[in-house]
Amino acid sequence: MNSFGKRFIITTFGESHGKALGCIVDGVPAGLKIDEAFIQGELDRRKPGKSKLETSRKEDDRVEILSGTFEGVTTGTPIMMVIFNTNQKSRDYDNIKDLFRPGHADFTYYHKYGIRDYRGGGRSSARETAARVAGGAIAKLMLRSIGIEICSGLCEVDGIASKRIDFEYAKSSKLYALDPDMEEAQEEAILSAKNNHDSVGGVVLTVARGVPIGLGEPLYYKLDAILAEAMMGINAAKAVEIGEGIASTHLKGSQNNDAITPNGFKTNHAGGILGGISNGEDIVIKTHFKPTPSIFQPQESITKNNEEVVCELKGRHDPCVAIRGSVVCEAMMALVLADMTLLNMGRRMDHLEMVYGRHLGMIVETFGKEILSE
Amino acid sequence: MNSFGKRFIITTFGESHGKALGCIVDGVPAGLKIDEAFIQGELDRRKPGKSKLETSRKEDDRVEILSGTFEGVTTGTPIMMVIFNTNQKSRDYDNIKDLFRPGHADFTYYHKYGIRDYRGGGRSSARETAARVAGGAIAKLMLRSIGIEICSGLCEVDGIASKRIDFEYAKSSKLYALDPDMEEAQEEAILSAKNNHDSVGGVVLTVARGVPIGLGEPLYYKLDAILAEAMMGINAAKAVEIGEGIASTHLKGSQNNDAITPNGFKTNHAGGILGGISNGEDIVIKTHFKPTPSIFQPQESITKNNEEVVCELKGRHDPCVAIRGSVVCEAMMALVLADMTLLNMGRRMDHLEMVYGRHLGMIVETFGKEILSE
Amino acid sequence: MNSFGKRFIITTFGESHGKALGCIVDGVPAGLKIDEAFIQGELDRRKPGKSKLETSRKEDDRVEILSGTFEGVTTGTPIMMVIFNTNQKSRDYDNIKDLFRPGHADFTYYHKYGIRDYRGGGRSSARETAARVAGGAIAKLMLRSIGIEICSGLCEVDGIASKRIDFEYAKSSKLYALDPDMEEAQEEAILSAKNNHDSVGGVVLTVARGVPIGLGEPLYYKLDAILAEAMMGINAAKAVEIGEGIASTHLKGSQNNDAITPNGFKTNHAGGILGGISNGEDIVIKTHFKPTPSIFQPQESITKNNEEVVCELKGRHDPCVAIRGSVVCEAMMALVLADMTLLNMGRRMDHLEMVYGRHLGMIVETFGKEILSE
Amino acid sequence: MNSFGKRFIITTFGESHGKALGCIVDGVPAGLKIDEAFIQGELDRRKPGKSKLETSRKEDDRVEILSGTFEGVTTGTPIMMVIFNTNQKSRDYDNIKDLFRPGHADFTYYHKYGIRDYRGGGRSSARETAARVAGGAIAKLMLRSIGIEICSGLCEVDGIASKRIDFEYAKSSKLYALDPDMEEAQEEAILSAKNNHDSVGGVVLTVARGVPIGLGEPLYYKLDAILAEAMMGINAAKAVEIGEGIASTHLKGSQNNDAITPNGFKTNHAGGILGGISNGEDIVIKTHFKPTPSIFQPQESITKNNEEVVCELKGRHDPCVAIRGSVVCEAMMALVLADMTLLNMGRRMDHLEMVYGRHLGMIVETFGKEILSE
Repeated sequence: MNSFGKRFIITTFGESHGKALGCIVDGVPAGLKIDEAFIQGELDRRKPGKSKLETSRKEDDRVEILSGTFEGVTTGTPIMMVIFNTNQKSRDYDNIKDLFRPGHADFTYYHKYGIRDYRGGGRSSARETAARVAGGAIAKLMLRSIGIEICSGLCEVDGIASKRIDFEYAKSSKLYALDPDMEEAQEEAILSAKNNHDSVGGVVLTVARGVPIGLGEPLYYKLDAILAEAMMGINAAKAVEIGEGIASTHLKGSQNNDAITPNGFKTNHAGGILGGISNGEDIVIKTHFKPTPSIFQPQESITKNNEEVVCELKGRHDPCVAIRGSVVCEAMMALVLADMTLLNMGRRMDHLEMVYGRHLGMIVETFGKEILSE
Repeated sequence: MNSFGKRFIITTFGESHGKALGCIVDGVPAGLKIDEAFIQGELDRRKPGKSKLETSRKEDDRVEILSGTFEGVTTGTPIMMVIFNTNQKSRDYDNIKDLFRPGHADFTYYHKYGIRDYRGGGRSSARETAARVAGGAIAKLMLRSIGIEICSGLCEVDGIASKRIDFEYAKSSKLYALDPDMEEAQEEAILSAKNNHDSVGGVVLTVARGVPIGLGEPLYYKLDAILAEAMMGINAAKAVEIGEGIASTHLKGSQNNDAITPNGFKTNHAGGILGGISNGEDIVIKTHFKPTPSIFQPQESITKNNEEVVCELKGRHDPCVAIRGSVVCEAMMALVLADMTLLNMGRRMDHLEMVYGRHLGMIVETFGKEILSE
Repeated sequence: MNSFGKRFIITTFGESHGKALGCIVDGVPAGLKIDEAFIQGELDRRKPGKSKLETSRKEDDRVEILSGTFEGVTTGTPIMMVIFNTNQKSRDYDNIKDLFRPGHADFTYYHKYGIRDYRGGGRSSARETAARVAGGAIAKLMLRSIGIEICSGLCEVDGIASKRIDFEYAKSSKLYALDPDMEEAQEEAILSAKNNHDSVGGVVLTVARGVPIGLGEPLYYKLDAILAEAMMGINAAKAVEIGEGIASTHLKGSQNNDAITPNGFKTNHAGGILGGISNGEDIVIKTHFKPTPSIFQPQESITKNNEEVVCELKGRHDPCVAIRGSVVCEAMMALVLADMTLLNMGRRMDHLEMVYGRHLGMIVETFGKEILSE
Repeated sequence: MNSFGKRFIITTFGESHGKALGCIVDGVPAGLKIDEAFIQGELDRRKPGKSKLETSRKEDDRVEILSGTFEGVTTGTPIMMVIFNTNQKSRDYDNIKDLFRPGHADFTYYHKYGIRDYRGGGRSSARETAARVAGGAIAKLMLRSIGIEICSGLCEVDGIASKRIDFEYAKSSKLYALDPDMEEAQEEAILSAKNNHDSVGGVVLTVARGVPIGLGEPLYYKLDAILAEAMMGINAAKAVEIGEGIASTHLKGSQNNDAITPNGFKTNHAGGILGGISNGEDIVIKTHFKPTPSIFQPQESITKNNEEVVCELKGRHDPCVAIRGSVVCEAMMALVLADMTLLNMGRRMDHLEMVYGRHLGMIVETFGKEILSE
C-alpha cells in the first residue's frame, strides 16, 4: 500500500518529523547510468524555502543512494535512497496533538489507525513527496534513453489562468508559471492570501513528449486511468483532466474527435491517449490542487475526545501547494511512463523474438551451442 | 491487466462481437446471499435500446453464474459470470476493418498489438462494461450488509447543468437525469445531436452514503486516487473531480476547509475523503464523459497502410454515452468500496483480536483445547 | 487468490460438480497462433478414465475458447476457456455432506469459510487442475516459439523407483512411467492397492529444456522458489526437490558444485538454477505426491457437529494421483516459465533499445517523424 | 521482485559490500508494541562469527528503525529498518571479479543483467537474509498476539540425522541442534569438512504452533505452496517437505490419512495443512540446504571472456550454511503466517460484521448518528 507501479516500482517510507524518509526503487533495468547530480537537482526544485511564495521551512533534502548501483551504473537490484530529516521543529505541533486540523488527514488517520503521529502530519505530510521526486528522477533518466521528456508548470493560480504555455519559461519562474504575462498577477494572489493568513489553489499542467505509440495496458491499467490515480494521489489534488478534459464535454463528437492524417493527428483533444493507450501525441494532463489547508486563522474543530476547540496553527506552510506540486506531478508522470514502458514489453510475439533471439545469439556465440539444450 | 482490485478482485474477458463476455469475481467473503434478480436488474439498467436516447442495438445481456455459489450463498471461491453475445452484426464493421475510426482505440490497439479485432471495437468496446456492472452488483450486495448505498445520475448534458440533485428521480428518468427541471432540455440536446448525426458529452455524479470512517489505504492506494483510476478507466471518461473538485481551486483555504464539530463536519467540500481516507461523509465524485466518438458524419482518417480515407460509420450507437455510463460509474464505485472495505480489515491490532479472538473461541468450544497447540 | 503469475496470469474458476470450470489467461502476447487441437490434446492427457489405473469417472473435458483470439491468433486480450461439467454424480456425495473426509480439505474449508460445497470436494477437487492444463497449453505454445520444451513422467510409485529416464517412452505409457523396466512393477503396486481399497503415492519428474540463461527474478520471485510454489500447490503434493535436491545435502561442497567450462557446466546438480536464475542447463524438479486420500476403507472421522462417525466413501477415485499429476506438473512448469520469460524482458537497458528502437523505427517509417514529438 | 507477501509485505534492499542493507515492512497493523531488543536479539542469533562452526567474519548487524513507529508503537505506516555495513573487506573479492565461482550466482547474474557487483556476491549474498530476519521479528511480535509461536533447529547435518526433536535444547546449541545426542557428531562433521577446505549440507526443521484453523488462501496462495516458495527462496535451499513429506509417498492412503476425532486429529502426517489451509495442528516444514558453495579448494571455472580458469577463493565462509539458515527459516515462516493471518480476515461475512459492527458502534457513540449518512 506504500508501493506504486507494477514493473517500475517505488516503495516509500518515512514521516515528516521522523528520522528519515526515502524510497526503494525496484525494477530499474540494469545498465542505466545514474546521474546523482540530476537526482539532487530534482529534489532541489521541490525543496521548500526557495522564495517567499513557499514555506520558510528549510530542508536540505540531501539524498543518498544506499544500494542498487555499482560504479555509477544500475545493476538490476533495488535502489534505496534516503533523506535524513534535519530541520524538524516537532514542538510546533505540540498544541495540535489532541485536536484535528480542518482539511487535514488528522481526523481520518486517527480513526482508521487508532493512533496518530501528529508531528507535522506524520506520514500524511506532503514532505513524503520528496521520495516520489527522487524515484521520479530515476524514471526520467530511464525514459530519456528512449526519447521521452516531461515538463510541467502552473497554468492557473487562484482562478488566474495562463493564456499561453511556455515550459521553458516555467523552469526559471519562482512559481513555475507557464505564462510570463500572468506570472505577476498570480504571484500577487499568493502573497495577498499569505498576508491574510490564508491560502490559494492552483492548477498544474504536465506534458510528456516523445512517448512511443502503445504505452498503457487496457482494460484495468489504462494509461489515462493510472495517470489519474497518480495525480489524484498527490496531497491536495482534487481533480484531474486528460487532454481537453472537461471542455470536451461541451463539444460535439464532430468537434472533439481528432482527425487522422498520414502525417499524424490533426488535433490533440485526446491528450495523447486513445482507449487507454498512448497514440504518439503529447500526453497532456491537468491536476487541480485545493488551497493549502494549513492557514493561520482560527478554525472550528474538535479534540480526540469530541470536544469543541478552536484550532490555531503555528509553524511554516506554503500558501499555494500547487507550486511545489508541479515538481511532484512531473515525478508521478515519469513513474507511470517508466512503468508502462516496461509493461508494454512482451505484449507482442515479435518482442520475444527481439529479446530472446538476440540474447540466444549472444549466448551461443560465447559458449557454443552445447550450453543450451540444443 | 484485466483485473481490478486487490482483495475484491474482478477480472473481465470478452470482446464486443466474440462469443461471450463476463468476469470472475474473486475475494467475495463466504456467506453472502446472492440475489440473482438484483444482478440481472443492474444489467438491465445498463443494457442498450431502452429508449431513443440510446443505441437501438438490442442486447438481452442475460447473465449466468457458473461458479462460486452453493445453494444461493457465496462459498468464498471465485464467482464466474458469463453473458453470451446474441445480437452481433459483425458485417456492420466490414467497412472499417482496414481503417482507424477517429476518437476510437482502433489506431492504438493496432499499433500496440499489431493485430486488431475490428468487429465493434473488439475488447475496447464499451460493451465490456456489462461485466463491470455484473461484478459491481455483487459488490453492492456485500456493501449493503454494512450499510453502504451508492447512487448516481446525470448532472450535465452538453453543457446543460442540473441545478438540484434528486437521486430518487434519476432512477426512473430515461436519461438518469438528476434534475427533473432540466431533463427536457437535456433530452432535446441529445436528440438534436442525434438528428445531426452527431453526439454530445455529459457528466455523471456518483455518491456513496453510509461509508464508515477509515476506508482508503495511503499512500499509494488512497480512496480518492483509486476512485479516480476507476472512473477515468471507463470508456470515454476524460476528467474526474472529488468533492468540490475544480471549484475548490477557486476558493481560499478558509473557505474550502470543512469545519469539524462534535456532531460531524459542517460542510463537505472534501467529498468525504481526507488524506485518502473516508471521513464518514458522503463520497462525492464527478466523471466527465466526452461526446461519443461514433458519429455518422464523414471524417478524415487513414488506413492501416497510411493512406488517406474518409471514414463513414454504419451501425447503431449511443448519442450520449454518459447516460449508460452512470450505471457503470456506480459499479466502479461499488468495486472500489468493496475492495477498500476488505483492505481496511487488519489495519489495527484490535481487528485481529476481534476476528481471531472470537474465531479461537468458537473452535475451542467445538473441539476442546487440544486441537490447538495452546 | 485464484490467480497465478505476474505477467502471464491464469485465473481459474469452478467447482467439481458446478456448471463449469475454466480459466482466463491474461498477458499472452499478441500474435501467437493458437492450436486448439493441441490444447484439447493436453486436456485429453489429463482426463480421467483412460485406463484401469485411473478413476473410472469419465469426463469429456471439452474446452472452448470464448475470447482473446481473432482468426486463430491471440490479440493481446484475455483468453477465456471454459469446460462444462457433464458427468457429475452429485448424489455420490450425499452421504458425506455432514462429515469430513480424512486427508481431504473438507475440515479446513468448512472452518475457514463456514460453508462448504461438499459435492466432489467443490473447489478443492483436483478437477480444477483441468483449467491449469488448459492454461499451461497456451504457455507451452508461447514457450515453443523461443525453443523451450517441457516433459515429465513418473519416476517412482509406492517406493518403486525408476533407474533410467526415458521421457519419450513415458508419453505412451499408461502411467507415464519413465523407466520401461520398472513400469510393470509400478503398475502392479497401483492395482494391488486398488484391489485392497487403498491408494499409493508417487513422484513426478519434470524437466524443461532449451531455457535461456537469465529467467528468474531474485530475490523474491526466484525461479526455484516459484517452481516450488507451483508444484507444492498441486493437490496432494507434499515435497519438492530442485536438481539434486535432498541428495545434495549428503554431498560435500566439492562434490556438489557444478564446474564451469568454456562449453558449459560439467554437471547439473543445481538443476539448471543458480541464485534463483536459470543457467541454461535443463531445469529439473521432482514433485512428491501423497497417496490419494480417497480410499474405500472405513475411516475414523467427525461430523460438522463434532460427533464421531465412520467415513465410508463411494464414488470413483484414482488409486495414484501422481499419474495424472504429471500432466499438471508440466502445465505448472509451463506457466512459471512463460511468466518468467515475460518478466525478464526489460531487465536490461539493451532490451529497451531492442523493443523501442525497432518500434520507433517502424512508426517513423510509416508516419514520418511528425507524429512523434520533435 | 524484491518484495514478499500480499498484506504483510517486506521489501528488502542492499548488497553484501554496499553501504547498507535493510527492509521496509508494510502492512503491519497499527497498535503493535515494538520490542526493539527482541528484533536485535533475532539478528544476533543469525549474525556470523559466534562460533568456529561459522564464518569468522564479524558483523555487528545493528538494526535501526527509521520510520513507522511512534512512541514505541506501530502507526500503520511502513516500518523501515536499516543495517549499515561495517566489516566489508571488498579486496577479498578482487581476484574473482572476472570469473564465475562454481555453485554461486555469479554466472547467472552476469548473464541476466550484463553487469555484476562481484564484491561478496553483491545482492545474491546470504547477507541479505539479515533483512528477512529483521522483518520476521516484527511478524513474530504480531503473531504472538494471537498465540502463534515458531521454533526451529537442525535435524540433519551431512547425513547425520536427529533421532529426537528438542526445540528448547536447540536454542542454546551452537549449531541449533535439535538432538543433544547427535550434536557432537554433527559438529565434528562440520569441523572435519572445514579442515578439509570443504563444506557440508544440512536440514532445518521449522514448526509453528498455535496456528488457528483457516490460514491459507486456495487455490493459488495455499499455505503449503507459499511456505515452499518462502523456504526454497532462501540461499542454498534445494528441497522442501511439508509434514511427512517424501516419506508420505511410501505410505498407503490408509496409513497416511490423519483420522479425525472430536478432540482433534490423531496424527499429523499432513503437517498441519489440508487443501492449502491450516487445520489447527502444528505446521511442520523441512528445508534442505546444499553444502556451502564457497570452498577453499581449486575449482574449474571460466572467466567473463569464456576462458578456462582455476577458481581459488579467499575470504571467510560458513562451512555449513544450514546453521544460520535455521534462523532465516523461522523468519520466513513468520512472514508467511503474518501475511496469511491478515489475508484470512474478510473471508467470511461475519468478519465484516465483527470489524464494522463494532467500529460503527464506536463511531456512533462518539459522534452521534449525524456524522454517518443516516
